[in-house]
Amino acid sequence: MARTFSFDLDALKRDLDGIELEDNPALVKQKSRDFFWYSPVLKRQLDDVTGDLVATPKDEDEVIRILAAAFKHDVPVTPRGAGTGNYGQAMPLSGGLILNLTAMNKVKAILPGRVIAEPGVIMAQLDRETRAHSGQELRLHPSTANTATIGGFIAGGSGGVGSIRWGGLRDLGNVIRLRVVTMEAAPRVLDLSGWELHKVMHAYGTNGIITEVEMPLTAAYDWVDVLVGFDDYMDSVRYADLLGNSDGLLLKEIATVAAPVPETYFLRHQKFIKMGQSLAILMVAPQSLDAFLALTEREKGDVIFRSDTASDLKGIPPNFELAWNHTTLRALRVDPAITYLQTMYAPPHHLEKIARMTALLGDEVPGHLEFVRFDGKITPMGLPMLRFTTEARLDEIVRLHEDNGCPVFNPHRYTLEEGGMKQTDAIQLAFKHEADPKGLLNPGKMIAFEDPDFDFAAQKTYLFPGLRVAS
Amino acid sequence: MARTFSFDLDALKRDLDGIELEDNPALVKQKSRDFFWYSPVLKRQLDDVTGDLVATPKDEDEVIRILAAAFKHDVPVTPRGAGTGNYGQAMPLSGGLILNLTAMNKVKAILPGRVIAEPGVIMAQLDRETRAHSGQELRLHPSTANTATIGGFIAGGSGGVGSIRWGGLRDLGNVIRLRVVTMEAAPRVLDLSGWELHKVMHAYGTNGIITEVEMPLTAAYDWVDVLVGFDDYMDSVRYADLLGNSDGLLLKEIATVAAPVPETYFLRHQKFIKMGQSLAILMVAPQSLDAFLALTEREKGDVIFRSDTASDLKGIPPNFELAWNHTTLRALRVDPAITYLQTMYAPPHHLEKIARMTALLGDEVPGHLEFVRFDGKITPMGLPMLRFTTEARLDEIVRLHEDNGCPVFNPHRYTLEEGGMKQTDAIQLAFKHEADPKGLLNPGKMIAFEDPDFDFAAQKTYLFPGLRVAS
Repeated sequence: MARTFSFDLDALKRDLDGIELEDNPALVKQKSRDFFWYSPVLKRQLDDVTGDLVATPKDEDEVIRILAAAFKHDVPVTPRGAGTGNYGQAMPLSGGLILNLTAMNKVKAILPGRVIAEPGVIMAQLDRETRAHSGQELRLHPSTANTATIGGFIAGGSGGVGSIRWGGLRDLGNVIRLRVVTMEAAPRVLDLSGWELHKVMHAYGTNGIITEVEMPLTAAYDWVDVLVGFDDYMDSVRYADLLGNSDGLLLKEIATVAAPVPETYFLRHQKFIKMGQSLAILMVAPQSLDAFLALTEREKGDVIFRSDTASDLKGIPPNFELAWNHTTLRALRVDPAITYLQTMYAPPHHLEKIARMTALLGDEVPGHLEFVRFDGKITPMGLPMLRFTTEARLDEIVRLHEDNGCPVFNPHRYTLEEGGMKQTDAIQLAFKHEADPKGLLNPGKMIAFEDPDFDFAAQKTYLFPGLRVAS
Repeated sequence: MARTFSFDLDALKRDLDGIELEDNPALVKQKSRDFFWYSPVLKRQLDDVTGDLVATPKDEDEVIRILAAAFKHDVPVTPRGAGTGNYGQAMPLSGGLILNLTAMNKVKAILPGRVIAEPGVIMAQLDRETRAHSGQELRLHPSTANTATIGGFIAGGSGGVGSIRWGGLRDLGNVIRLRVVTMEAAPRVLDLSGWELHKVMHAYGTNGIITEVEMPLTAAYDWVDVLVGFDDYMDSVRYADLLGNSDGLLLKEIATVAAPVPETYFLRHQKFIKMGQSLAILMVAPQSLDAFLALTEREKGDVIFRSDTASDLKGIPPNFELAWNHTTLRALRVDPAITYLQTMYAPPHHLEKIARMTALLGDEVPGHLEFVRFDGKITPMGLPMLRFTTEARLDEIVRLHEDNGCPVFNPHRYTLEEGGMKQTDAIQLAFKHEADPKGLLNPGKMIAFEDPDFDFAAQKTYLFPGLRVAS
């Protein structure tokens, strides 16, 4: 099913009279991009992608008007928060309309253990409001919390800071309710909760537009950023694993990064970092600090930085901006040849797997682990950096991981399936047919919809035939 | 080392002038008992145990005066909170002075994530104060929270409600600091934190008197009590295990109880309970309720009770008073021949172990599991009821568990070692020699101190030669 889209943009604009629009090509292109360029593969494939028009609705009624008009004129619609994704989630492969949701940024209600908000609110701002209101904060946020929107996180993210306690966004209970507008002649508004949430979560906005979110909150603390050094990377990994499994210690973030990444790429922290040390990157609750330090001392960890005692924090980013994909970002800024992978080392043999991959790949793939809860178990997820040479070698390294029992969630693919579970998500697909019968929402991202016969087992990269080449 | 204690009680009393004392034998005996009678073995051994005098200090200065005077006159001192223990923790085996700490019940400071309090405060009262102050509560409490003291819990307990999230009291971080007075001519006051806490935690007050506690707090919610029925006990166990491992669901309590315990012994809940059903006993955060119900429906659980929707809660105890040793208590009230065990079913083969023991012992040992975090893993701890016939059969059932890979923490023993780890705790023993050189604190509870040559491997029950027989 090759798909092309032709539409009358002027007719669409007329129908959107009164809604904030932008058609300056430079500005539209700016709003057509995300952090896809972390991947040299996606950079090659998507660098010319751009939409035709940006619409910025101020409320749900305007979203409904926009979707109805786009449906009528057969215009593709790609929703977008702050565009901090890494897989082209918010990039309009077939052009058309960018639905910029950042003006829908109101926090509507803060309750014990929950918050109701519009999708475009920046997560750090949301946390500021819930903290000020009642000492609460989101369970989970990405390392881009200072710029990313809550709606974008739900539609395009999977977990992050806080996952060491709460698991991932997909875990039942980490999103309470989503309000979603469908892409039909008369768009419907649906409130989804429980299992129904999986219809639209991490679906890149391919099957509905989120207009309201209800999220669980947890107690906010003045988290202490701590960096702990080890001369041997595997010692830092064992230490992080022990911390994660210490049930009485409250931490919000546990990551490890292998030398020489800290000394080479963590430029803001140079005055603290010792040559040759690998680091554990941690956020510790103040009430757990005594116990945490007792354990760290026993494990011979070298506490090189504590935000609660550092004499000068000027210019020092928070620890969570050393973690998750900010690790990669800091490396990329120094060495543009760096890219990354997303892997998993399932317990109980996670330490052996990490040691084996480290031995196999050495400094070509410098280690970076994020410890999270996964099905109840503390599990190191890998976000190793990768010194890119060729796409063939990249694919080879992916296969090396898979051959050694370490699944890869490939960040060098722009489709839902190739990045994630390598198969059709029947629930998302069924809802796509229901909520977006014309296939206008974020075209090209769900292979199961675009090409029902695609053979996932063949290990061929999917190329969306609707990808619009720049003229 | 046979020890007997002889002392001049009148001389002691003179030295305690101005401190609240009680020597009425009936009242002293009442304050010399705990819930040891859950065990027919301890009931036989300890039924006649009584002290000679109760002293009730109102502050730390009075504790110091009492200890100095008792040291001078060689009077054994057994500290006591509310006496809700089950192993004779607070029973004065050699008579002497009962140190009743319930008048030291002030909450001194409530801070973000922590509380500082005197040891005698009732835990439910502590939670009321921290809730009213800032929406916080203790991480852990026993099922006796409405009567038990925080100091008694730390000195004689191990975990309870909340352990599904935070593990046990012994886990580093679940107690922040303890202030302890030693038993010497001039008692010292020590502040212990980090690893030092293990010197005195769960030591039954054998090596120091706790005069102040600093505990971590967590966010308080209006926990919803839910009972979920299953026709097959193992289905309830698998469901509870799944709940515990669902990282996005916030629960404070997960227990399972096999039929016919609910229908026979949970008298206050009779109108909800269906014949033949085993139950999962749960406390669910309101913000997790939608997700919890979605999972419960998928698992075909029968929600027979919800405290948030029940029409009449009059006379209905909270769910935590169906759990932990309140399960046993409810059974005992109906059938005095009931006692219990404490076992553990370590993952990853926990479900098989539970199924095997259930098949082996059937209704002679009705199943009761408490799901907790243990070294990072969701682990079912057993508190099975046991239809007692003889001590020989009881010991046989203990051995049956051990032979099948299920360790038993024997609640039919009054010593630290026999109930717990079957070996000398070198840290507690060393601190006993330092803090209680005369061995006056709670004599007879620490075998390693009373009889350094005791052979733990011989599996013989320790009989304290200082046990004072009633005259």
